[in-house]
Amino acid sequence: MASRDSGKKIVGLAPDRHTSFYGRDIVSVKQFSPEDLAYILGVADEMRSLVKRVGATDLLKGYILANLFYEPSTRTSSSFQAAMQRLGGAVIAIHGVQYSSVSKGESLPDTIRTLECYADVIVLRHPEVGASEVAARYASKPIISAGDGIGEHPTQGLLDIYTILSELGTIDGLHVAMVGDLKHGRTVHSLARLLRLYDIRLTFVSPDVLRLPAEIKQEMLEAGRPVTETDRVEEIIGSADVVYVTRVQKERFADLREYEAVKDYYEITPKLMARAKDKMALMHPLPRVGEIHYDVDDDPRAAYFRQMENGMYIRMALLAAVLGKA
Amino acid sequence: MASRDSGKKIVGLAPDRHTSFYGRDIVSVKQFSPEDLAYILGVADEMRSLVKRVGATDLLKGYILANLFYEPSTRTSSSFQAAMQRLGGAVIAIHGVQYSSVSKGESLPDTIRTLECYADVIVLRHPEVGASEVAARYASKPIISAGDGIGEHPTQGLLDIYTILSELGTIDGLHVAMVGDLKHGRTVHSLARLLRLYDIRLTFVSPDVLRLPAEIKQEMLEAGRPVTETDRVEEIIGSADVVYVTRVQKERFADLREYEAVKDYYEITPKLMARAKDKMALMHPLPRVGEIHYDVDDDPRAAYFRQMENGMYIRMALLAAVLGKA
Amino acid sequence: MASRDSGKKIVGLAPDRHTSFYGRDIVSVKQFSPEDLAYILGVADEMRSLVKRVGATDLLKGYILANLFYEPSTRTSSSFQAAMQRLGGAVIAIHGVQYSSVSKGESLPDTIRTLECYADVIVLRHPEVGASEVAARYASKPIISAGDGIGEHPTQGLLDIYTILSELGTIDGLHVAMVGDLKHGRTVHSLARLLRLYDIRLTFVSPDVLRLPAEIKQEMLEAGRPVTETDRVEEIIGSADVVYVTRVQKERFADLREYEAVKDYYEITPKLMARAKDKMALMHPLPRVGEIHYDVDDDPRAAYFRQMENGMYIRMALLAAVLGKA
Repeated sequence: MASRDSGKKIVGLAPDRHTSFYGRDIVSVKQFSPEDLAYILGVADEMRSLVKRVGATDLLKGYILANLFYEPSTRTSSSFQAAMQRLGGAVIAIHGVQYSSVSKGESLPDTIRTLECYADVIVLRHPEVGASEVAARYASKPIISAGDGIGEHPTQGLLDIYTILSELGTIDGLHVAMVGDLKHGRTVHSLARLLRLYDIRLTFVSPDVLRLPAEIKQEMLEAGRPVTETDRVEEIIGSADVVYVTRVQKERFADLREYEAVKDYYEITPKLMARAKDKMALMHPLPRVGEIHYDVDDDPRAAYFRQMENGMYIRMALLAAVLGKA
Repeated sequence: MASRDSGKKIVGLAPDRHTSFYGRDIVSVKQFSPEDLAYILGVADEMRSLVKRVGATDLLKGYILANLFYEPSTRTSSSFQAAMQRLGGAVIAIHGVQYSSVSKGESLPDTIRTLECYADVIVLRHPEVGASEVAARYASKPIISAGDGIGEHPTQGLLDIYTILSELGTIDGLHVAMVGDLKHGRTVHSLARLLRLYDIRLTFVSPDVLRLPAEIKQEMLEAGRPVTETDRVEEIIGSADVVYVTRVQKERFADLREYEAVKDYYEITPKLMARAKDKMALMHPLPRVGEIHYDVDDDPRAAYFRQMENGMYIRMALLAAVLGKA
Repeated sequence: MASRDSGKKIVGLAPDRHTSFYGRDIVSVKQFSPEDLAYILGVADEMRSLVKRVGATDLLKGYILANLFYEPSTRTSSSFQAAMQRLGGAVIAIHGVQYSSVSKGESLPDTIRTLECYADVIVLRHPEVGASEVAARYASKPIISAGDGIGEHPTQGLLDIYTILSELGTIDGLHVAMVGDLKHGRTVHSLARLLRLYDIRLTFVSPDVLRLPAEIKQEMLEAGRPVTETDRVEEIIGSADVVYVTRVQKERFADLREYEAVKDYYEITPKLMARAKDKMALMHPLPRVGEIHYDVDDDPRAAYFRQMENGMYIRMALLAAVLGKA
């Protein structure tokens, strides 16, 4: 094994392309240039080939990931664990406050500075917006955000982009529709911000009370991307290349009758899919609770489980990249 | 590392005996033929030699086990984790609903289909009878049941069989007595069903209210195995080759006086062991809470800690077999 | 991999110095001779070089650590996990009673005897004083205490000694001040007992109600170590070579006015550090909740995060030593 340094803030030393990721924190989709995106999507593709071919590698043998989850998330946590393990690295899983110094009143920076004594990279899931940036400010090892509150979820955005590319072969020129709770869904926000970098048009489908925040819509328009809004999924099902569905959460409605009135617009059924394009991708960040009927699962356009799998390849790519091993 | 495929439902391709396990789910003791049993017990024996000799191997290097426990079980979970790790594989441990998409309302099939995006094999412990079969129906990777509700616990049955064989050198011809709560104890049910395949006679020792379900007794009789029932352990202690003790659970009794009246029949003491055969095996699935006195632990016939250890060898054998590496 | 035996109670076979640790339990700082201490500090130093140079090794490849925590402790648990993983070993993490046979009424000896069927070494954190010694009595594999109740926390004591040595180059001749809750703090008790072996003088700084137990003070005096007590940190800040700060816990005070009256004496600020020696070490077992101001963190004398890191090296040394691989 080669000699090691602390990894961070030493960018610029190495000669090749991966230097832009080596030692970096991954806390927001806003930090990626088009070149960054192209690079990480390329590495993810190599990771997929590798897993399909031989299952795993020893690239990160001897490295340790601290997986610090302040709120539960089976799929994101498992995905990062599997990513690290398939790269030959080890994981310290820290889940739930009951198993944490937080219950003794410790600050996030102290917890982070402690964990980086043991680990080479830290993945952080936290309920408060901005927590990952705070962590990154204090850490000397790379921090990768696994979602903070209703804020960012950058690795989800990346895996969504990777899935579109992998399902349809391109992103430029597509019509992407996002459906469901667009107000609170951080996955939708992260994906929309990444899509700005491509030549696409967007339709946002939601009940009035769950519309996309004006700020994000404005960012789309400023980037020159055409935006339409509607509350009827029927209007877009025939023309969309990507239908990205999220949960309409009952508990967000003050008046349950309002919920009952809208929820049926947002169940994707085989009947609805019959009206969709032959070549398109139906996506969902999961978990689902009724937005997509189980009978759709066998439709070849149903991409959500492949989307899950892609999450592992994106996380493998990021872990390898920030540790200078991509 | 050789090329890999998804593993499942491709049985029949490989030429040798282990093909009958490659890609299979392990959800019920009923699925095993006598040849299956002989095969897996043989592999377990090789695993024991290997661990005694060198501690571990790299047979499953690069493979990942998702250990999905919907209810706590220290020993079963630890046993599977150790089994996978001693084979060189990695583990994603998912314990407790608080750390799970289940709390967001996700269905078991969706959870399973997500985890198999990351892992190569899934071990499932679930409180509902039949959960493992549901999981197996949806999964394309092998599912191994670690117990579902009061239903099956197939790996426990296998390790019990392996322990009898390992302690006494044979199973045919033995007198096996099962003692305690025979009504609710799934370990007893799984073991009884496996014992049908051998030429044995059985005595079931329990208070009236905790008798073996009629259905399982009937299966024994149909297989031509002599069955006796009694409520007094004294009646069998002198003639049994195997005494398999389970907990008599206080909370099962509506009338506590009834419990007090019976519980003493079911405490195995050194005094009672003095009347047992010189060569016999005293077994218990553990944890115990009084059914076997601590003073019995040093008796060479007390096999329950070796039984624990055997669990690891059986699970190593199953993991290697379903992944096509036995 | 070489042949293996059970590890324990076979001391005396191997010819070299590490035999004094091979197969041993680590349950109290009282068990260490000066030679033991010198040996383990030396191995820790080698572990540090190794990690700085190459990150990890394969010394304990194929070995399994069971990390059994009956109460939460992020940092101690993570430190042991990282230590085992950097040595190439695997970890079974068992955290919280909800994930434990304890909830079914199992005794500690049974849990230990079960886990040693799967693992090669057990780390135990338990809320009851003496639990580690009970565990060690029943185990045939080595037990390492990770703290029991208000009793011992031997690995913390060792890492503290190692930190003093590493920061200041020597321990003999130093003036060590301990500050805060000296009555309940087990880290302080373990460290004080180890310091007896060196030629040092001690000052204990605490409010009256949180003084060091008379028994431990007596042990210091009997070992010929000069001891002073005070309630003002200002009195020692100018002369101490080591200032070891612990939490003054609000909840220990019946009268909150008493707490308010004393707590300010025990906040280490940049202003206070301006009066400290140029070469000294400010230590804290962490987590902190106000005893050391964040503005002190960048002071080169602030040793507490290096102290955390040293914990991993000490635990690597102990794990390797008790498994006969140091």
